[in-house]
Amino acid sequence: MTATPSSPRSLNVDLGERSYPIHVAPGLLDDPQSLRPYLAGRQVMIVTNETVAPLYLERLKGGLEDDLDVREVILPDGEHTKTLASVERIWDALLAAGFNRRCTLVALGGGVIGDMVGYAAACYQRGVAFIQVPTTLLSQVDSSVGGKTGVNHPRGKNMIGAFWQPRAVLIDTGTLTSLPDRELSAGLAEVIKYGLIRDAAFLDWLEANMGELLDRDADLLSEAILRSCAIKAEVVAADETEQGARAMLNLGHTFGHAIEAHQGYGKWLHGEAVGAGMLMAAMLSRQLGWLSEADVARVARIIAAAGLPMAAPASMDADAFLERMRLDKKNIDDRIRLVLLNALGEACIHDETPPAQLRSFLDDYPRA
Amino acid sequence: MTATPSSPRSLNVDLGERSYPIHVAPGLLDDPQSLRPYLAGRQVMIVTNETVAPLYLERLKGGLEDDLDVREVILPDGEHTKTLASVERIWDALLAAGFNRRCTLVALGGGVIGDMVGYAAACYQRGVAFIQVPTTLLSQVDSSVGGKTGVNHPRGKNMIGAFWQPRAVLIDTGTLTSLPDRELSAGLAEVIKYGLIRDAAFLDWLEANMGELLDRDADLLSEAILRSCAIKAEVVAADETEQGARAMLNLGHTFGHAIEAHQGYGKWLHGEAVGAGMLMAAMLSRQLGWLSEADVARVARIIAAAGLPMAAPASMDADAFLERMRLDKKNIDDRIRLVLLNALGEACIHDETPPAQLRSFLDDYPRA
Repeated sequence: MTATPSSPRSLNVDLGERSYPIHVAPGLLDDPQSLRPYLAGRQVMIVTNETVAPLYLERLKGGLEDDLDVREVILPDGEHTKTLASVERIWDALLAAGFNRRCTLVALGGGVIGDMVGYAAACYQRGVAFIQVPTTLLSQVDSSVGGKTGVNHPRGKNMIGAFWQPRAVLIDTGTLTSLPDRELSAGLAEVIKYGLIRDAAFLDWLEANMGELLDRDADLLSEAILRSCAIKAEVVAADETEQGARAMLNLGHTFGHAIEAHQGYGKWLHGEAVGAGMLMAAMLSRQLGWLSEADVARVARIIAAAGLPMAAPASMDADAFLERMRLDKKNIDDRIRLVLLNALGEACIHDETPPAQLRSFLDDYPRA
Repeated sequence: MTATPSSPRSLNVDLGERSYPIHVAPGLLDDPQSLRPYLAGRQVMIVTNETVAPLYLERLKGGLEDDLDVREVILPDGEHTKTLASVERIWDALLAAGFNRRCTLVALGGGVIGDMVGYAAACYQRGVAFIQVPTTLLSQVDSSVGGKTGVNHPRGKNMIGAFWQPRAVLIDTGTLTSLPDRELSAGLAEVIKYGLIRDAAFLDWLEANMGELLDRDADLLSEAILRSCAIKAEVVAADETEQGARAMLNLGHTFGHAIEAHQGYGKWLHGEAVGAGMLMAAMLSRQLGWLSEADVARVARIIAAAGLPMAAPASMDADAFLERMRLDKKNIDDRIRLVLLNALGEACIHDETPPAQLRSFLDDYPRA
């Protein structure tokens, strides 16, 4: 894999009439031409949050307001705001502005903003256009691609939502310079995930370059984003609505969602919970005889190197995990479905872990 | 067209992998086998309202509870309950029951229940199965078929929703015996609509048989339902998400929705507002030179014969209409789109009525 410094690069998510491009380049935010080809009409609603707005909102609006009807909604920041009430604020603003079916929503922010705006677009007048402009590494490599939208419910993460594809994903890699370290690490959790589930060579590359990635080497980050998006695009194109193989993208997420929900959304970042969850999945795969001790040690090392937590929260016993995991969307009837690893670079979907073994594994897993 | 007394009859809505059958017969509610082929798994949530539950809920549940996990949600009755808050009650019940992606929602009731349950199914865990069991004439001939789901917003009808197709539509014509007269008439508005937009021979048939239909002749009602569903299925199959021709199903609805929203949902029944709205559309089509006086007189006669209102509410001036009509989902940018009639049996979609002419038409239209 070679990096092409500073050049804009693009991928296509191949979904028939719902196909769309992902553009990756520094400075996309400042170029009004990057957005224009994907607008459905003259009405544009940019939705962002209080953290991102001061950094990027005016830059994105520049050059659009001359001839378009551009409005904005600025929501509070944080996973705890990912609720139906926030989406209702977007709908209220659209209706107050008299926006019709030809309007376009623009999600400017991280995964929370992207998921909520996508869901708002999916259901406004039964579906309008939207564009993802992700500003965190996590949303750039994961949530902005693939059309999963939605909000949390007190009983579970992303329980209310829709599959609704954006018209385009515009990734301005310049936004990563302002990202807090903790969020950079959280994004790297999803990057590592792609290596673990499907691309052992990418995992090798990440091991070799983790230091430079944490130092925000622009070309290496750009390369990691492109490679991650390419893997996600392949998986999504093969299984848009998660009837089967797409579930592999949930490596670490069943454990991770349980942690997030139990701790209260926002205490752990999503990527942090996924980091610990991936190590849990690797260790359970080892117990089932699929990975070697050396494999698990590699997983632990790269998760630690990325600055991610490895232990589960001290406050969560096995029951706390199991109660949340039973509500996971992947489950069919009463069986808990997990994404595990047959090998490093090869995920599998498994719903035959004996309940007693799963409980004993959860009892024994390290807590911090 | 001949009626086949008391035999179950079926149609198919042809939407590729989203195709589904419509079954029409007396007694379907009492036959658990009518529902079973369309269940996604063992978890079944029946949603109905306080009016319908005492009449049909136990009959529908009979024979299902032995081997399935059957739960219920009973909502208040009425168009004013068609809100996001009601849909949240359904989601809360699904999550409290621990229902997963393989659950099936069953909408037992009229159009309000069907629209809300369809929307709840569209967004629960990003989409689960649902079955329509419509118990009013209006929902049997219109809202249960075609996958339009959603709720009202204080600023407009059906502003929040999704296209989400049911697995099956089960129409028990026996439910019409308990339907209030006013609701029978409201349902006939949509039946008349099918004749007006697409089937002049059906319009002739309706004129000849309106008396017997109001007297609830079972075979004639069954015939009217089948013919209506067949027309709707054809239109929907050609344009599932209303990019074009499907909008013709909105004859009378732009004026009608404005009446409903202005009066407060539930004061006028939807079918009543559509009845007046269709006469308004016919009279505007006459002004544009497309229909004859005799055509308009026929429309007025059959609307009156069905027991539907012809005048607009006295409290609504032209501004009150226009303000609501500007928010109609059919509009593109700033133009009001109307469904009008080129001839009886032939609808057209028109957004070139000069604003001054539309205002003058609204000023002059009879009020009561």
